[in-house]
Amino acid sequence: MTEPHYTPLIQSLPASVPFIGPDTLERDRGAPFRARIGANESLFGPSPKAIAAMQAETAEIWKYGDAESFVLRAALAAHHAISPENIVVGEGIDGLLGYLVRLMVAEGDTVVTSDGAYPTFNYHVAGFGGVIHKVPYVEDREDPATLFAKAAEVGAKLVYLANPDNPMATWHSGDAICAALDLLPEGTLLVLDEAYVEFAPEGTAAAIPVDDPRVIRMRTFSKAYGMAGARVGYAIAAPGLISAFDKVRNHFGMNRFAQAGALAALKDQDWLAHVQAEVAAARDRIGDIARANGLSTLPSAANFVAVDCGRDGAFAKAVIEALGQQGLFVRMPFAPPQNRCIRVSCGRQQELDAFAEALPKALTQAAAQARG
Amino acid sequence: MTEPHYTPLIQSLPASVPFIGPDTLERDRGAPFRARIGANESLFGPSPKAIAAMQAETAEIWKYGDAESFVLRAALAAHHAISPENIVVGEGIDGLLGYLVRLMVAEGDTVVTSDGAYPTFNYHVAGFGGVIHKVPYVEDREDPATLFAKAAEVGAKLVYLANPDNPMATWHSGDAICAALDLLPEGTLLVLDEAYVEFAPEGTAAAIPVDDPRVIRMRTFSKAYGMAGARVGYAIAAPGLISAFDKVRNHFGMNRFAQAGALAALKDQDWLAHVQAEVAAARDRIGDIARANGLSTLPSAANFVAVDCGRDGAFAKAVIEALGQQGLFVRMPFAPPQNRCIRVSCGRQQELDAFAEALPKALTQAAAQARG
Repeated sequence: MTEPHYTPLIQSLPASVPFIGPDTLERDRGAPFRARIGANESLFGPSPKAIAAMQAETAEIWKYGDAESFVLRAALAAHHAISPENIVVGEGIDGLLGYLVRLMVAEGDTVVTSDGAYPTFNYHVAGFGGVIHKVPYVEDREDPATLFAKAAEVGAKLVYLANPDNPMATWHSGDAICAALDLLPEGTLLVLDEAYVEFAPEGTAAAIPVDDPRVIRMRTFSKAYGMAGARVGYAIAAPGLISAFDKVRNHFGMNRFAQAGALAALKDQDWLAHVQAEVAAARDRIGDIARANGLSTLPSAANFVAVDCGRDGAFAKAVIEALGQQGLFVRMPFAPPQNRCIRVSCGRQQELDAFAEALPKALTQAAAQARG
Repeated sequence: MTEPHYTPLIQSLPASVPFIGPDTLERDRGAPFRARIGANESLFGPSPKAIAAMQAETAEIWKYGDAESFVLRAALAAHHAISPENIVVGEGIDGLLGYLVRLMVAEGDTVVTSDGAYPTFNYHVAGFGGVIHKVPYVEDREDPATLFAKAAEVGAKLVYLANPDNPMATWHSGDAICAALDLLPEGTLLVLDEAYVEFAPEGTAAAIPVDDPRVIRMRTFSKAYGMAGARVGYAIAAPGLISAFDKVRNHFGMNRFAQAGALAALKDQDWLAHVQAEVAAARDRIGDIARANGLSTLPSAANFVAVDCGRDGAFAKAVIEALGQQGLFVRMPFAPPQNRCIRVSCGRQQELDAFAEALPKALTQAAAQARG
């Protein structure tokens, strides 16, 4: 045969990549970025205790990881005051979103998200033949009422809501999320992505009973815990839904470093508090830098800030490119009107110094290009 | 809603686990095994250089891994004298098998494997709604002619063949595999699982042209390279098939430890040679222990040995259980008549000493139980 006989669905899919990764971008430019502040990675790193635990685990790396992530799930259960039966650990939120879509979405099933929200979720939906319906942000926030109304209209199996949001860093109070659940249609599962919730004000995590069958939450060690490269996320939901993951997941997919590191990171809440303080300070500084350049920022409940460049998406894209030429990695939202902004991750002092230095030139260059 | 609305396929699936993992078994017994020689893990460990590389990588773990595994793929390409376009890196062979099945198998599509061969492959096929047809081993070997004839009969999308085989450790020469390809039906893709090939005699890896669209090979760092807990495998195939993985894979699913460790492990071929020699010696010793107990072993091209207990599956199961009571973790084949054997991984001297000590008592106990 000249080509393998792919399934019809696979034949219909584009060869798409949700994101070009920072390592790829660094390779393309032939050098590391001097400020890698575009992927919302935590430049403050993980807890030194997590690093020590991961280094120690190298001696055990000849062993497969624990298929049940038993110890980590027990620790997470204690941390959240829930049962391990409410928790599934997976290869980052990305991996868990893939499994979840596979559990729920058959070809032609509908799914609702916000236009400009997390593209990897959309990638998984498309990959299983789901049909995506997008609703606009409302005042730069993902809007539960709009999302759930669309879900009712199209009979969605899943509706995706990130709180706090990425890429805008905006958020709703947990109470607002809980209240909005009354509008969630029967038969629609809410995927509540709380990847950034550790950076948000107290009360942002919605107090939804853990056994509520209408909601699954996603959490991660990639952001506040600083372990994006270890690949460990988890989902919280009713036991029935959690056990359904066992029908499809890669049971031995978790690496031992991730399991050991996440456990140690979770136990070091002092380090988390340190990172939260650093992030809060960095958000303020990004705001100061923006204002010094005549720009405004959106309020942020995450480890990044949306800087409003005050013009259209083409202008913001020119700013991103001009920053890139100066060795800064920054991204931007995909959809208008949010794409008037650039999304700057909370770096350390040296990265934000670089941003402060590079931004004026980038804005000048973009403005010249716009006049062009 | 009381239960999420799973897809019809998911509703039809049992909550199945391909294997109970060794960590689970150790938890159940309340202590580590004194000889963990049941999962074909490499007790000789990875290269010290790989360990050092993984430890060093902890400083970078705040970064996502490289979505393209660019450096590792380049090194693998050089190692195999092929192009990086012929290689996809994934979360172990298990992860890659899942992606491959998803690419090829729609609900109702047929797949062929050997009865008693790798159950995780079957798990993935069932998980995507494929229909599995099994053929028997021939003289304790997976048999290409039988497999390919069945594939022709049922119009299989995929046919699975491990060379060397797991759980029997038997093998075919690469030339025999190449010759058998003439029997592979048009439209069937051969999944050639070479997880254990580094332990096999020279000439076991089939010299199939890398761009042959009829075959995809699977390789891993979990066995000879001693990094099961890091989760890194790779597939070798024609560029078209390799790029199809980009339609479905978890692009940021690889952890940085795995990428760094695998690279260093690959470069330390001296360590690989050391492990190969240790494994060869351990295979001989397992043979000696078996013979000292009146048992025979099958010839092995892997890092484990099938010890023929000379009776039926119930007897072998009793031996396994009696070994377990003495703190030894050993597995056995699933299907008759191969389940007359137990499968013993190549341990170090201390694990094989434990096996030598425990086996006589286990055999006595199993024999008493059989008389029962």
